[in-house]
Amino acid sequence: MSYGERRTDLAVEARELWRRSAADTDALAGVEAFESQEEGFGVTTVQVLNEEGQKKLCKPIGEYVTIEIGALLRREEDAFARAVGVLAGHIRSLLDLHGDERILIVGLGNSSITADAIGPEALRYILVTRHLKQQMADKFPGFRDVSALRSGVLGTTGMESAELVCAVTEKLRPDRVVALDALASCSMDRLCRTVQLTDTGIVPGSGVGNHRAALNRETLGIPVLAVGVPTVVEAATLAIELAERAGSKNLDPSLFGESGDMIVTPRDIDSRVHDAAKLIGYALNVAFHDKLTVDDVDLFL
Amino acid sequence: MSYGERRTDLAVEARELWRRSAADTDALAGVEAFESQEEGFGVTTVQVLNEEGQKKLCKPIGEYVTIEIGALLRREEDAFARAVGVLAGHIRSLLDLHGDERILIVGLGNSSITADAIGPEALRYILVTRHLKQQMADKFPGFRDVSALRSGVLGTTGMESAELVCAVTEKLRPDRVVALDALASCSMDRLCRTVQLTDTGIVPGSGVGNHRAALNRETLGIPVLAVGVPTVVEAATLAIELAERAGSKNLDPSLFGESGDMIVTPRDIDSRVHDAAKLIGYALNVAFHDKLTVDDVDLFL
Amino acid sequence: MSYGERRTDLAVEARELWRRSAADTDALAGVEAFESQEEGFGVTTVQVLNEEGQKKLCKPIGEYVTIEIGALLRREEDAFARAVGVLAGHIRSLLDLHGDERILIVGLGNSSITADAIGPEALRYILVTRHLKQQMADKFPGFRDVSALRSGVLGTTGMESAELVCAVTEKLRPDRVVALDALASCSMDRLCRTVQLTDTGIVPGSGVGNHRAALNRETLGIPVLAVGVPTVVEAATLAIELAERAGSKNLDPSLFGESGDMIVTPRDIDSRVHDAAKLIGYALNVAFHDKLTVDDVDLFL
Amino acid sequence: MSYGERRTDLAVEARELWRRSAADTDALAGVEAFESQEEGFGVTTVQVLNEEGQKKLCKPIGEYVTIEIGALLRREEDAFARAVGVLAGHIRSLLDLHGDERILIVGLGNSSITADAIGPEALRYILVTRHLKQQMADKFPGFRDVSALRSGVLGTTGMESAELVCAVTEKLRPDRVVALDALASCSMDRLCRTVQLTDTGIVPGSGVGNHRAALNRETLGIPVLAVGVPTVVEAATLAIELAERAGSKNLDPSLFGESGDMIVTPRDIDSRVHDAAKLIGYALNVAFHDKLTVDDVDLFL
Repeated sequence: MSYGERRTDLAVEARELWRRSAADTDALAGVEAFESQEEGFGVTTVQVLNEEGQKKLCKPIGEYVTIEIGALLRREEDAFARAVGVLAGHIRSLLDLHGDERILIVGLGNSSITADAIGPEALRYILVTRHLKQQMADKFPGFRDVSALRSGVLGTTGMESAELVCAVTEKLRPDRVVALDALASCSMDRLCRTVQLTDTGIVPGSGVGNHRAALNRETLGIPVLAVGVPTVVEAATLAIELAERAGSKNLDPSLFGESGDMIVTPRDIDSRVHDAAKLIGYALNVAFHDKLTVDDVDLFL
Repeated sequence: MSYGERRTDLAVEARELWRRSAADTDALAGVEAFESQEEGFGVTTVQVLNEEGQKKLCKPIGEYVTIEIGALLRREEDAFARAVGVLAGHIRSLLDLHGDERILIVGLGNSSITADAIGPEALRYILVTRHLKQQMADKFPGFRDVSALRSGVLGTTGMESAELVCAVTEKLRPDRVVALDALASCSMDRLCRTVQLTDTGIVPGSGVGNHRAALNRETLGIPVLAVGVPTVVEAATLAIELAERAGSKNLDPSLFGESGDMIVTPRDIDSRVHDAAKLIGYALNVAFHDKLTVDDVDLFL
Repeated sequence: MSYGERRTDLAVEARELWRRSAADTDALAGVEAFESQEEGFGVTTVQVLNEEGQKKLCKPIGEYVTIEIGALLRREEDAFARAVGVLAGHIRSLLDLHGDERILIVGLGNSSITADAIGPEALRYILVTRHLKQQMADKFPGFRDVSALRSGVLGTTGMESAELVCAVTEKLRPDRVVALDALASCSMDRLCRTVQLTDTGIVPGSGVGNHRAALNRETLGIPVLAVGVPTVVEAATLAIELAERAGSKNLDPSLFGESGDMIVTPRDIDSRVHDAAKLIGYALNVAFHDKLTVDDVDLFL
Repeated sequence: MSYGERRTDLAVEARELWRRSAADTDALAGVEAFESQEEGFGVTTVQVLNEEGQKKLCKPIGEYVTIEIGALLRREEDAFARAVGVLAGHIRSLLDLHGDERILIVGLGNSSITADAIGPEALRYILVTRHLKQQMADKFPGFRDVSALRSGVLGTTGMESAELVCAVTEKLRPDRVVALDALASCSMDRLCRTVQLTDTGIVPGSGVGNHRAALNRETLGIPVLAVGVPTVVEAATLAIELAERAGSKNLDPSLFGESGDMIVTPRDIDSRVHDAAKLIGYALNVAFHDKLTVDDVDLFL
């Protein structure tokens, strides 16, 4: 890419960037993608098939499902319940649920920064059942054993999120981990309008440019689903994009050097994060507890 | 300006922009500015003297004092107490305090959006005394009568901030109003590193592009001091700046059209807002209550 | 009463106390009461008819409707929607709504104290429409003009709640005011299990024993509905009750003298306050916006 | 005890209760206690020496230091700094600090219930250093390696606090654990006016009557200091006390049966919890980081 590195956590964008930068004749071998419409929502599935694909997209081998939730944000009729259904279906599928799996849901991110609060906000909507199942297992048929953890932030805990999640996973021995986090996009149009589900796990805070330990099957020993919502574009990424569109060749790469680390977010970030977090929370409940409906969740919360 | 309108709430930046855009020989009549160092902090005072100056800078006639608090953020020795002292001095001066004035402090902005939370955050550090003075006036010599109001946000109150502040001002009849708010800058380097004090008041939410009723001497009938901290650059302003630096002539003005309203903030916005809000809160306490020190404020909070 | 003053904000309890203390043959003239079942909830209406009744119950002349929501707390089938319907009906009736009245909803109480947070918590569920109606009045047929105000607390504002509410009422000129607050009961069994609606208004913080200005038709000039939930029993009231039940005659009245002001609350006060606040918020929405259902409210929040 | 079981988490109260219930001639063998004044604060040390003492007081063998902080609450001159110093000295002593011990501080309790929020509130004042020491160990001489954990509550995590603390202790392998929690007292006069430090650890939520796994040297394998502040009296305990004082013999033990679990707290619980939490946070910082002063901590927070 001629203007340096754009930063994105979305496989669907990484694929677009690769295609824009490559010559027309290049094949994007090692990566497959297909699009569909589900209940009125656009769904794009990107599969990184092998190491060649991994190298090209800089994304681990695995499946990435992106669901466009713009219809939800326009508050179309029944949009919320339909979006919950679509997400719940993909969550069950990517986690390969078929029995009585025990689930640990982790909310990553910093609740003091609105754009980083998707994880902790979504936890507010989670129906936690582990303690109930342990006390009266037979009273809750159809409910999976679900526990939840806020990872907090390094500056106030002194622990990396991955350290805490590893510690708890070793102790509780769940069958699956779900990690919720805010992501970085390279397109302002996708901010808070997309949910990415992937079975490749996540590097906590990767959206904020720190290299940290991953949460994935390799590090935790069990399947890890990452659920992410892009809430920021890095200012440096925006600058590259703008310069490219402007046809300029002489953008000074040190332009952001003095200003430190800047991010671009929607002005109404609070209501957008609220909407996305609620959607994710409800979808996880419906995915994990058989026969539960959106109305049931309303009743409990 | 060749690339449309940059948005800034800082008089010191409006002056810079005017000078950049004007021919060398143009005089910026109607505006005076001077710089100084106070206790190690850079202080710039811009005076808009008349209608010509007002028109050029798009800022009302009056005085704008900008204090650079970068030294504070680097946690230099005694920086906090020194910054409190510098601010408190200018607050007293701009409000023309000399007796037993009663003060209403208003925290504008949305506490759910980190970058907009300067006002409500600063209120957490305010020593409110009105109720104590009313009950036992003679027990608190040297303390002014201070009350505080969170204006809330339109979407959750249904009221413009100015409506609420007018209502309370008419009821309480204070002698001075201080309005605290987050501002928009056109420079990323100034974000959370500058405090602007002005006797011209403020248009609440002007930083977010809505045209709303002003809080100033004309609308409230008493002197109004606005204390603001720039926390965001509008993405459109950033784009203009970038295009200009890149020497590009063909930046598409509709570039941000689809993306809605975007803002640029520092990634560590939470700790920066905390630091600035604490500084402002302490400075107001020290300005209004004679002989009070930073240590005294620590004791009460 | 032989053991001093029990404290209650509930008319239904004041009536019980009077009857217990009075001789069998005394008539409680000036007060009428009747009980009914509505949608499975027990409803008691107490009418204080004249000054004799007012003096006996120490409650202003007017109507007091008490709804027992225990069934809701047991999470019975459809209980939430049924309770919302019952409350909404009484809210409309007590406020004498028949046209396009503009409503100001005030959340009294201290959000930092769980037991006092009913008011501010309930506001979180309110659909505010005043700003929308003002901008596009004809776009919202069937929706009344609703605004909302958190009164804050004296220690952080320096203003009595009544001062603030008066100021805003004078400015906005609504047709009705609804005041939400936590109440004191004299029975632990009623804590968070009862909602009292009354057209007599409220003295903010009366539940906490301070004599403050009232919010009622007399002070505000318009009908005022108070919606309250008992969340505390004063420790002194509990002591009186216990002593009476124990048949003791020698309870030391100074027993609580040294300990300062103590209150009794349920241990799970957080979830009980949450449940009651949500119920009240939904009921107000359904009462004020014609044809709105519980599901509609879920969609907007 | 003639009126059933009073509940207290304070060793100093358990000793008083034993002495009141015992005949004059009984010796309280196995328990020693002595009182002193330190910097104007009353300090009582109770030592449970052996199994006889343990059985009598229902408190594990070990040392319990109780510091009366009433002087602090009256905001006496320098009271805060003096109280920090007294606590810090006992913290260092009970934890047997002499080198470069790594410390994990755990905030137990429910931040949504004001009276249970001492733990999470105190964490807000903790200077966490583990991540800094790991990155640049030699840059922070005199600072110990401190990490912090909020245990959350069972209903929202599905995990017992002890499970989470054990998991993290096994992973991080600190040398010491400090557990912060709200306690139950049997005296209203002690609420929020006392801090208990003990080297015997704690049973999380023991203050709320649930039998849960302990956090102590036996379960965690390292020294555990519990720092607790009494914030509630159980209503049942209050009833027993009242009945005893009233000389009544016929208090119905089922009196509280229907009402569920009730607690007594001060009405101004929010400011009392804030004051105690701040004191504890500062004292831990001063105890763990050599040469740090109260003013230094102010600078960092």
